[in-house]
Amino acid sequence: MNSDRRAVILLSGGLDSTTTMAIAKAEGYELYALTFQYGQRHAIELEAARRIANALGAKEHLIVPLDLSIIGGSALTGHLEVPKRDSPEEGEGVEIPVTYVPARNTIFLSYALAWAEVLQTGEIFIGVNAVDYSGYPDCRPEYIAAFETMANLATKACTEGGMHLKIRTPLILLSKADIIRKGMALGVDYGMTHTCYDPLPDGRACGRCDSCHLRRKGFREAGYEDPAFSEK
Amino acid sequence: MNSDRRAVILLSGGLDSTTTMAIAKAEGYELYALTFQYGQRHAIELEAARRIANALGAKEHLIVPLDLSIIGGSALTGHLEVPKRDSPEEGEGVEIPVTYVPARNTIFLSYALAWAEVLQTGEIFIGVNAVDYSGYPDCRPEYIAAFETMANLATKACTEGGMHLKIRTPLILLSKADIIRKGMALGVDYGMTHTCYDPLPDGRACGRCDSCHLRRKGFREAGYEDPAFSEK
Repeated sequence: MNSDRRAVILLSGGLDSTTTMAIAKAEGYELYALTFQYGQRHAIELEAARRIANALGAKEHLIVPLDLSIIGGSALTGHLEVPKRDSPEEGEGVEIPVTYVPARNTIFLSYALAWAEVLQTGEIFIGVNAVDYSGYPDCRPEYIAAFETMANLATKACTEGGMHLKIRTPLILLSKADIIRKGMALGVDYGMTHTCYDPLPDGRACGRCDSCHLRRKGFREAGYEDPAFSEK
Repeated sequence: MNSDRRAVILLSGGLDSTTTMAIAKAEGYELYALTFQYGQRHAIELEAARRIANALGAKEHLIVPLDLSIIGGSALTGHLEVPKRDSPEEGEGVEIPVTYVPARNTIFLSYALAWAEVLQTGEIFIGVNAVDYSGYPDCRPEYIAAFETMANLATKACTEGGMHLKIRTPLILLSKADIIRKGMALGVDYGMTHTCYDPLPDGRACGRCDSCHLRRKGFREAGYEDPAFSEK
């Protein structure tokens, strides 16, 4: 019953999830990309996700509409101001960022779990990273391990069908520069990806939000030019 | 920070979730009812949930639209036939019913977790039951315990704010008859609740699906008349 060559990939359209998808592809999986449309300001990510799913040859790309703004509590879905700063170090790592969305990865992984069961695969890939985003509790290895334990008790396929569910996090302990090096080695075109929390009206990255700072720093350290900020 | 008197209650509009809500009310909680509109056939449940939230004095009632049919895999959201049988014993307990929705409680509890964090409470009530619905893996105590462990690692409020998240399952080991007795003792009007998986065109319960059979048997054993099947 278990379709070993299938994998569900959480694909936001950003740098991390795209690299994760390229890793799953390199491991020979048939790719089932899962993207959420959750009232985020950066809906431009959705277009990026579509391009990437297509470019990496996803077997299926499911876009699930989720209205997380109904629950509130985050700058990404509510009406708070996204924090901007001129240098990447200013204020970094002090506390969990206000762009935190309550239980976001738990909700996303729950859908991935449902789809994995329908697809009869135990493989779920998610591009969480505990290094650069250490402020998010749901990006840490201990959280992922606990989700995996829960997931194996939650579904018919695992409790009856002998399926073992694995949450694969190939980036979890990598620096941003290491992630970029890995992706470049796999031939990822980072020009397709979108990272910015608060893009300019013409769709380009703002270059000043936390996410842009981390990305630029990563490219600098990896020794590559970031196509998001190069002249096109 | 912790608002101890608030509780998030998963409210489907059925007998179990209504009894659970009445228990939370009796314990003195301020009630935040959470209902999902997930492409289920029995949308009539939503009306029941509204009536019940109102009757029990919920402080807030959040109805979250979820399109689980996009993922597929269940008679409740897909296009399979809901199984009917003329006696409650026929075929009972043989296997996990086809009305099983993949990862449903995991998805529901994930939203409850997000809302609990926004409300700054650690109390989530869910009317799962491991006795009558033993076919559903996500109704068992070991699943609930694993979800609770995961939830305490998932959110800012728990990892930073000292909140301890508890999944309260007051019905988990009760028989249907015990649940009904408990609810009657708390003054629950079960005429407001809706249980049927496949109601008649006029909105009345079919009386023949698994859910109706369990309910009728419960009322019979508890020694009460079920208002869903009495002449109105």
